[in-house]
Amino acid sequence: MSFPEPLVKLIEELRKLPGVGPKSAQRLALHLILSGKPAIDGLVSSLVAARDRIRRCSICGNLTEADPCPLCKDPRRDGSVLCVVASPQDVAAIERSGGFKGLYHVLRGAIAPMDGVGPEDVGTDELLRRVRDSKGKIKEVILATNPDVEGEATAVYLSKELKPLGVIVTRLARGLPQGAEIDYQDDITLIKALEGRREI
Amino acid sequence: MSFPEPLVKLIEELRKLPGVGPKSAQRLALHLILSGKPAIDGLVSSLVAARDRIRRCSICGNLTEADPCPLCKDPRRDGSVLCVVASPQDVAAIERSGGFKGLYHVLRGAIAPMDGVGPEDVGTDELLRRVRDSKGKIKEVILATNPDVEGEATAVYLSKELKPLGVIVTRLARGLPQGAEIDYQDDITLIKALEGRREI
Repeated sequence: MSFPEPLVKLIEELRKLPGVGPKSAQRLALHLILSGKPAIDGLVSSLVAARDRIRRCSICGNLTEADPCPLCKDPRRDGSVLCVVASPQDVAAIERSGGFKGLYHVLRGAIAPMDGVGPEDVGTDELLRRVRDSKGKIKEVILATNPDVEGEATAVYLSKELKPLGVIVTRLARGLPQGAEIDYQDDITLIKALEGRREI
Repeated sequence: MSFPEPLVKLIEELRKLPGVGPKSAQRLALHLILSGKPAIDGLVSSLVAARDRIRRCSICGNLTEADPCPLCKDPRRDGSVLCVVASPQDVAAIERSGGFKGLYHVLRGAIAPMDGVGPEDVGTDELLRRVRDSKGKIKEVILATNPDVEGEATAVYLSKELKPLGVIVTRLARGLPQGAEIDYQDDITLIKALEGRREI
C-alpha cells in the first residue's frame, strides 16, 4: 500500500458511511486532502457542531437544537393527531409536503425481527407512554412507517398496542403515486390501488 | 425546513464532496448523527490527523507523512526512469500492479484548457526542473496520464517540453484491457489496439 497511514485511516472511516464503497472512500479522502486545510476544517467544524448541538427532542424524538423541539412547542399544531415515523428524514418530507398540521413521534427506526431489532429498540414504549399520558388529548395516531416489511411490522405491532388505549389508529393510504404510469407499476401497488379505490 | 441548523450546515458541507448529491448528503449526515458521538469522533479525528500529518513530497509531489516520501528515499528504486501521473491514486494503482520499479512524479491534476487549468497550475515546471537538475540521471520519462482529453493534452505538452532536455519520452500503451470482449470495445480502443499491434 503506498498511501500514508493517516490517509488509509481516513479512507477506512469514510468507508463506514452508508453507500460508500472502497473506491468512493478513496476518492472522497483524496478530494478532501487535495482541497487543502480549509475544506477539511469546514467539514470538521460542522461535524463537531452537529455532534455538540443536536439532540433528540425529549417529547417527540426528532432531532433538534432546543428541547422541546420547535414542532412540539408550536401552539398552532394540532395536538390531537400524532404522526408516527421511523426517522427524522420522514418528518422533513411530510413537513415539506405541507399536508399535515399535527404533531410527530419519531421512532429510532423500524422493527426488524430478522435483524434482531425489537419494539423496545425503536422506542415504542415512549410512544405508548406518550399516548397514555395524554389522557385522551391524543385522539388519532397515524402510522407513517414505510410500506415495506419492517414498516408494516412496526405498524402492525403498534396498532395492536395502541387500540386498547382508545385512540383511532390509521395508516397512510396506499395506491398510485402522482404522475405514475399504470403500465409500469408493480403488482402490489396495483392491488393496493384497486383495494383502496374510492367513489368519485 | 424542519432540520436544526447544525444539521443543515453539515448536509451542506457533505454536499461539497464529489459524487454526493442532496439526498445522499442528507442520508450521510443523519447516519452520522444517529450513530452517536463515537462515530462522529472517529471521523473527526481521522480528518484532523490527515490534515495535520499528510503533505506533498517535496521531490515527487506524492502524498506522504515523511518528506521525502518512502518511494523517493528507497535506494532500490531505479532513478533513471520517471513515471509522471496526474494524482496520488495513480501511484497507488501502479504500485499495486507491481509493474514499475522506477520513481514517480505526481502532477496536481491534468491540463484542462477548457476549465482554465494550464501547465503551471498542475506543476509541470517542477517536473521540468527536476529532469533538468538530474543532469542526465533521469533517462526516460513515462507519461502515465489518463487516456482522455485532459490526459492527452498534458502528455502532448510535456513531451514537447521534455524532448529538448535529452530524455526518452514514452506514453503508456493503448489497446485491449485484460479480459475484454472485442465485441464490446469502443471504436477508439479497437483503433489503438490495431495501430499498436505486435508480432508474436
